[in-house]
Amino acid sequence: MRFLIAYGSTATAEIDGISAAGATPGVMYHTPAADAELTTYGALIRTHAVPVSPAGCPTPAIITRAILNLLDRHPLAIDAGLNVATGAPTIDMTTSPGGDIREPEPVPRAEQLVGQGRELGERVPDADLVLGESIPGGTTTALGVLRALGEPFGVSSSLSENPIGLKETVVQESLRKNDHEAGAAASNPVLALRCHGDPVLAVLSGICLGALEADRSVMLAGGTQMVAVAALVRHAGESAPLTLATTPFVAEDPAVELAAAGEALNLSIRVTDPGFGEASHVALERYQAGEAKEGVGMGGALALAAEADIPMSRVRGEIIRVYDSVVTHGA
Amino acid sequence: MRFLIAYGSTATAEIDGISAAGATPGVMYHTPAADAELTTYGALIRTHAVPVSPAGCPTPAIITRAILNLLDRHPLAIDAGLNVATGAPTIDMTTSPGGDIREPEPVPRAEQLVGQGRELGERVPDADLVLGESIPGGTTTALGVLRALGEPFGVSSSLSENPIGLKETVVQESLRKNDHEAGAAASNPVLALRCHGDPVLAVLSGICLGALEADRSVMLAGGTQMVAVAALVRHAGESAPLTLATTPFVAEDPAVELAAAGEALNLSIRVTDPGFGEASHVALERYQAGEAKEGVGMGGALALAAEADIPMSRVRGEIIRVYDSVVTHGA
Repeated sequence: MRFLIAYGSTATAEIDGISAAGATPGVMYHTPAADAELTTYGALIRTHAVPVSPAGCPTPAIITRAILNLLDRHPLAIDAGLNVATGAPTIDMTTSPGGDIREPEPVPRAEQLVGQGRELGERVPDADLVLGESIPGGTTTALGVLRALGEPFGVSSSLSENPIGLKETVVQESLRKNDHEAGAAASNPVLALRCHGDPVLAVLSGICLGALEADRSVMLAGGTQMVAVAALVRHAGESAPLTLATTPFVAEDPAVELAAAGEALNLSIRVTDPGFGEASHVALERYQAGEAKEGVGMGGALALAAEADIPMSRVRGEIIRVYDSVVTHGA
Repeated sequence: MRFLIAYGSTATAEIDGISAAGATPGVMYHTPAADAELTTYGALIRTHAVPVSPAGCPTPAIITRAILNLLDRHPLAIDAGLNVATGAPTIDMTTSPGGDIREPEPVPRAEQLVGQGRELGERVPDADLVLGESIPGGTTTALGVLRALGEPFGVSSSLSENPIGLKETVVQESLRKNDHEAGAAASNPVLALRCHGDPVLAVLSGICLGALEADRSVMLAGGTQMVAVAALVRHAGESAPLTLATTPFVAEDPAVELAAAGEALNLSIRVTDPGFGEASHVALERYQAGEAKEGVGMGGALALAAEADIPMSRVRGEIIRVYDSVVTHGA
């Protein structure tokens, strides 16, 4: 098994009110760089603060790292457009950060990114791949891609109040500026990525395509951004089995319609409940209140813990241990 | 335990007859990029041939990967001046390849590289670090650093016939072009690196300093290039205990005087014999004939296998398995 997580950025996140991943652009762009360090080392190396939402919800990177500790596994990080230097080792995709999707071509090199991702997915010599992401603003670009492909599904939010109206407005503006109707890119996923997506979606859809073509099994670890990856793969004509592993926070979000998306895109949906309601700790209670919900491969990591029969009480204990260690030593 | 390997390049390797790491500059620069992929994945990803010496000796990356398979450990790669893109995830040191040491300043950013390495060594949260390298031409730059520091020791070669006269001539020319006598940089290791070294030595000496300052244990995994790293660390005033783990091929090389270097630099020397003479396989017999000798952390990997009580027959079996798999599927 190989756990690959793509980290990147999109200027779309700078639109007021879009993302919880940081209060200001500086803090926001810092989030994926810090997430890469936390998942790699369980500590910060070059970055200087553990990403925490305005209401105090810590990054899901802590949850993924805690579970990988219990499984003794090591994830690989992909630089799919980081805007801030990370101390984690990253596979270089030679891409710039994504632009604001209201600009003409937010991902001008989308085709090359899909190609590079595909090559990686074909050549990584593991039978099973798990794919995750960290990109602030990523649910808005995911919505842009879904609408451009003609898919009707909604997206979740890392905020407890989903600014879904704002996201739809931004996506409508993105479609309009290219004279695209919804569904204009239904037979051209690269067009959807180039005009309405982000570099993380481009790289991950490429990896997924390459891995499926090489007869590997792929688990998409995440929420609605991974639904967008699945949609890109299906619209590219790939019909091989595909699993999406996510959290109850996404699965129970009425904005998402996850079951319908799973059916339409032929996804096997796996939801793993970490039982955060049973522990009272600052690291967990904001999740229970509906913040963060997913990200940095959290749903996939939970699925791997369940597969390995690790009790969720042990998972929660290790999350608290990692949280206390990075919040004490890392911030 | 954290196994960190720095990969880089120096134009010094292009001097005719210096390195066995490739017949032409193109092939040579490809070697560390491929080594990083082999140690990370046990397979090639973006590069297209397993590095093999002109006489058919495969890269020690295969040996290190085989042992890490048996130990179920994952190494981290550092880009300390790669000249060819690698598909391995790398920690970015934002350095260019090193220049020819006969030019005025082959490593103009030596001070920053030592500083970045130091930060990494301080912050990586593991109690034990193992450090390795892959840089064609690296024994010549190591000799340059040793002479600039005023250390008298010789260096080994990846060729069975060590072109030691040529290396000494190149190093004399390097010293002369800066008006340096031997020992001119004895109290200024950054000067030795900037004028006579390479970016890999700069980064590794920085990591070693940072880790020792943070009370970590460090094992230098390699031969005479790691002697140069130790010399840089000692000349920077750091006297903490330090282990150098290498192969019998280096330890028994009369050009090297390893025991004397160990005594002068206060190194605990550990030599682990992989018993390659007991197996007859193309992947091992060129080592027995004196080629390659070390590199890509091989001596350290062997020491870790011995510490874990893995029989060398099992190590040899896994080396042959990895070799057959990459030579069949990767080349």
